[in-house]
Amino acid sequence: MPDASRRNESSRQAILAAAFELVGEVGYAKLSIEGIAARAGVGKQTIYRWWPSKGAVLLDAFLMLSEGDGGGLPDTGDLEADLKTVLRATVKELTDERFDLTMRALSSEIMHDPELARMYAERLDEPVRELKKQRLRKAVEAGQLSDVDLDVAVDVIWGPVTVRWMQRGPLTVEFADQVVETALSGLRP
Amino acid sequence: MPDASRRNESSRQAILAAAFELVGEVGYAKLSIEGIAARAGVGKQTIYRWWPSKGAVLLDAFLMLSEGDGGGLPDTGDLEADLKTVLRATVKELTDERFDLTMRALSSEIMHDPELARMYAERLDEPVRELKKQRLRKAVEAGQLSDVDLDVAVDVIWGPVTVRWMQRGPLTVEFADQVVETALSGLRP
Repeated sequence: MPDASRRNESSRQAILAAAFELVGEVGYAKLSIEGIAARAGVGKQTIYRWWPSKGAVLLDAFLMLSEGDGGGLPDTGDLEADLKTVLRATVKELTDERFDLTMRALSSEIMHDPELARMYAERLDEPVRELKKQRLRKAVEAGQLSDVDLDVAVDVIWGPVTVRWMQRGPLTVEFADQVVETALSGLRP
Repeated sequence: MPDASRRNESSRQAILAAAFELVGEVGYAKLSIEGIAARAGVGKQTIYRWWPSKGAVLLDAFLMLSEGDGGGLPDTGDLEADLKTVLRATVKELTDERFDLTMRALSSEIMHDPELARMYAERLDEPVRELKKQRLRKAVEAGQLSDVDLDVAVDVIWGPVTVRWMQRGPLTVEFADQVVETALSGLRP
């Protein structure tokens, strides 16, 4: 890597780390490009060169945190066990204060900012949804899942956790397990 | 009703109607107490006397719109048909631009404002959840639903529609029907 790229990469990492720390300290409303620049030790023009808004910086900070997660869903052959593993991990993430604060700030901003919503969908939501559908498709092929619309299946399995998190209801691993069991077996006796 | 109460009630209605119109015209970010007061023809102190924030005004405007809905969920004895009726109505509401804009603004604000989140939960979310659980409890008694945690059941049935709306995915009556069928019968073959 040439020196300039290395410098850019180290500035990028400093900016994302600063954005992440600051949103935890001051909240999203008081987060500013100026504040991030000061904390990261860069000029604010450096930030504006790479990101159009503080929401976009935060989205990248969040993606940096989630890197490592990109390898697909677990596949032990036991769909119920695998879904419980995944949903429990999601519950743990969403109850981790760093994730919680960043996700709340992003989710809120996305409601107002269609450009950020588009970036979020393209870079986070759609790739993750594709991984979920891949795992479910294998379960359909293995005869463990009926041949339903996979987007409906994804929303029925993952939607309840998202909604409970948004409404600040009790978010526990027991809830994750109950959702998986209910989604697979249905509510009928 | 004495004159003063009548005047108060007519001011209240004018303020809520103005908040509703304005959020549609200028968006939540540019909505202001001053703007609402000017549109409603009242002083801004009148608004501050009754509401702590523009989010609180909007919550009441939304509750005014939803009045008339308070009578419980349909109960024809056919749970699947009744849930489809309710979820289709929710889809229609969420795809109505007036509801959509107000709900997005409120949902976003609730992420930041714990006081508004508390008001929202107490005045809208919890009473509506209670009505849903009442209907499900009757289905359990009628042997149409297994004896699950009703809060889990509510989240599995209603969560997918909320999440799809938030993520701006395709929100159709067909989706509502598929969610009800999947939640009741489960994803297993």
